[in-house]
Amino acid sequence: MEIKMIGGSVSAPKGFTAAGVHCGIRKNRTKRDLALIFSEKPCSAAAVYTTNKVKGAPILVDQQNLADGKAQAIICNSGNANTCNANGIEIAEGMCALVGKALNIDPRDVVVASTGVIGQPMSLEPIAAGIPPLAAALSKAGDTQASEAIMTTDTIQKEVAVSFTIGGMECKMGAIAKGSGMIHPNMATMLGFVTTDAAITPALLQKALSASVADTYNMVSVDGDTSTNDTVAVLANGMSGAPLIDCEGEDYEAFCKALTFVNEKIARLMASDGEGATKLLVVKVTGAADTAAAKTVAKSVCCSSLFKAAMFGADANWGRVLCAIGYANAPVDVSRVAVSFASAAGRVDVCQNGAGIPFSEELAKTVLSEKEIDVLITLGDGSAAATAYGCDLTYDYVKINGDYRT
Amino acid sequence: MEIKMIGGSVSAPKGFTAAGVHCGIRKNRTKRDLALIFSEKPCSAAAVYTTNKVKGAPILVDQQNLADGKAQAIICNSGNANTCNANGIEIAEGMCALVGKALNIDPRDVVVASTGVIGQPMSLEPIAAGIPPLAAALSKAGDTQASEAIMTTDTIQKEVAVSFTIGGMECKMGAIAKGSGMIHPNMATMLGFVTTDAAITPALLQKALSASVADTYNMVSVDGDTSTNDTVAVLANGMSGAPLIDCEGEDYEAFCKALTFVNEKIARLMASDGEGATKLLVVKVTGAADTAAAKTVAKSVCCSSLFKAAMFGADANWGRVLCAIGYANAPVDVSRVAVSFASAAGRVDVCQNGAGIPFSEELAKTVLSEKEIDVLITLGDGSAAATAYGCDLTYDYVKINGDYRT
Repeated sequence: MEIKMIGGSVSAPKGFTAAGVHCGIRKNRTKRDLALIFSEKPCSAAAVYTTNKVKGAPILVDQQNLADGKAQAIICNSGNANTCNANGIEIAEGMCALVGKALNIDPRDVVVASTGVIGQPMSLEPIAAGIPPLAAALSKAGDTQASEAIMTTDTIQKEVAVSFTIGGMECKMGAIAKGSGMIHPNMATMLGFVTTDAAITPALLQKALSASVADTYNMVSVDGDTSTNDTVAVLANGMSGAPLIDCEGEDYEAFCKALTFVNEKIARLMASDGEGATKLLVVKVTGAADTAAAKTVAKSVCCSSLFKAAMFGADANWGRVLCAIGYANAPVDVSRVAVSFASAAGRVDVCQNGAGIPFSEELAKTVLSEKEIDVLITLGDGSAAATAYGCDLTYDYVKINGDYRT
Repeated sequence: MEIKMIGGSVSAPKGFTAAGVHCGIRKNRTKRDLALIFSEKPCSAAAVYTTNKVKGAPILVDQQNLADGKAQAIICNSGNANTCNANGIEIAEGMCALVGKALNIDPRDVVVASTGVIGQPMSLEPIAAGIPPLAAALSKAGDTQASEAIMTTDTIQKEVAVSFTIGGMECKMGAIAKGSGMIHPNMATMLGFVTTDAAITPALLQKALSASVADTYNMVSVDGDTSTNDTVAVLANGMSGAPLIDCEGEDYEAFCKALTFVNEKIARLMASDGEGATKLLVVKVTGAADTAAAKTVAKSVCCSSLFKAAMFGADANWGRVLCAIGYANAPVDVSRVAVSFASAAGRVDVCQNGAGIPFSEELAKTVLSEKEIDVLITLGDGSAAATAYGCDLTYDYVKINGDYRT
């Protein structure tokens, strides 16, 4: 099956519209802060959430609203995470009620999400004022405004859309996401919203989503901090006319492939736009004893502050890769490890059998000065593989986070 | 028992001398790079090492040399970690042989350690040339040169010495250490060398050391990276004349108290001099269900890049404290958590029952602008407590590590 990139994002699939406005949660009037995604027909819905014990109030509301596997709209604000607030649930439920009223749908068919500062008092007032114009602005072209409205310290909008076929019928899938900081997902990550006009049962949609995030969102780390608000939600409205996917098989596999394609694109965008990042780091581990070991090693290297700072400096300090492999909680025979760096500028092998080998520092500098670096780790313990997505650690990460609340 | 701070470090106890020279491992001629500590009598010896699977060659040699619980000298170089080198063991054993010859002692009674870049080829030549003048320079005053010689990116020398009494006799204990980067010990940390003229059996010395590092060195984190070369070694030569500690009891307790006092001082020095650090962060958790939970929570907060960057900016972003408590792998009822910040400038309460409370941002800024910040976390789950030591995340951390090898 061919997966084709197309323009747009969450309103690319049939029957979906979106919008984004500035309602006043943020003081900066030029930055949109409220996003809405709507399907004209009810959807199968699935979501995964953070494993942090401190959970944003919207997640508790979503867990109830999605218990029946159905939803029709997603409302999301930036500027306030609605987390660690005494009246958080009330606010989140209020957001759903306002959307239900504006769109004439059941408030329990609304997915709600918030992102921004934790523990700041939040008022429903700007949202109440913002939702009617937001609902009125829903359109096919509005998805780019929605994707802007969910950004916090993100510097690029994270949007993707693809077409694929199920049972000979063309389906579409789109997604928007926000990332940047407090990114070290465990079960889900920050905010990702996926829409599709494929037809699939809620149970299979949940299964496909959970499997896909394990290899995509959950392999991203910007700073090792697992957020309190991580949420990825998928809505499937079936309007493509493609046959309903109600059992595993060829159609389900095709759907999973498209979903993982979209999620991986978003994961890469999220890592490359990590707070302060100048480079995308793609850590590819092969030859591992099993997938768990491959993932543990890939994430350990991807999360090492020392290694990330070295990549910022385009310094081929591969000893830090070995160090991070060594403290990863995985069965690895370090005497068989090989490491190379690769990018559009070429490839340089730096370590074999766990020891350094002579290499050109000049070539290494050239390879590591690109915007996207592959860190190739071969373990020699088996045949399992995994890829993790991260970014370099820079002055700007410190600057952004030294005074985030103002 | 009273523990009294005295001047000096590892040569403060009776019978110990020390020295540090520049031998040429480092190109910078003004920076000493080879340290020696010597006891005129054989010592009971104990050590703890990194749990990283990638281990510096010196550790493998020490594990053999200390198998009999005896040692008489410690040799340590900076500028090269002697790790991931094909001929590492040969080099480390060569260093012991050279010291044995110069001091006329058994090479197997030498503890060897190296710190610096991982995976750089290393030659015995400068060390062979440096050891005879190093041995000739051994003196009571030489410990400050030894402590300088083991520094890498450290900006302050880490030295401490105390006097205490065992069975009515005055004993002394001294220590030097290096820290700064790749600091996230697990079983031991970086390099710490402790000397004492107390008399104690090797088995009890090991027991005391292992217990003490769990609450001191192992509660320090600078950057979450567990080094390949972490080693803390203690030599006890018994020359104080105090009675031999050969069973648990009052004398053993007194010894443990002195050892933990010394180790905690070093741990604080190490955290406050973390790479690029401008502030010492002391995270004090009380009210935990058990000690393991208290330690896990304290370290999780202490290791959060987001929280560390906020402390650099003197920003009371306590939501990041809650976030790091929430993703810590510990049983915590987040609805009972309280958080305060305290320093020499005062105290500000910011969170109660897991939710924000109104506080003066002005006071918070003043409190967080000090050089030493206490982060007070009360869990309300029980009565266990733990303290972790860390530092802020700054531009200089990135600068130092963006190009460490040159």
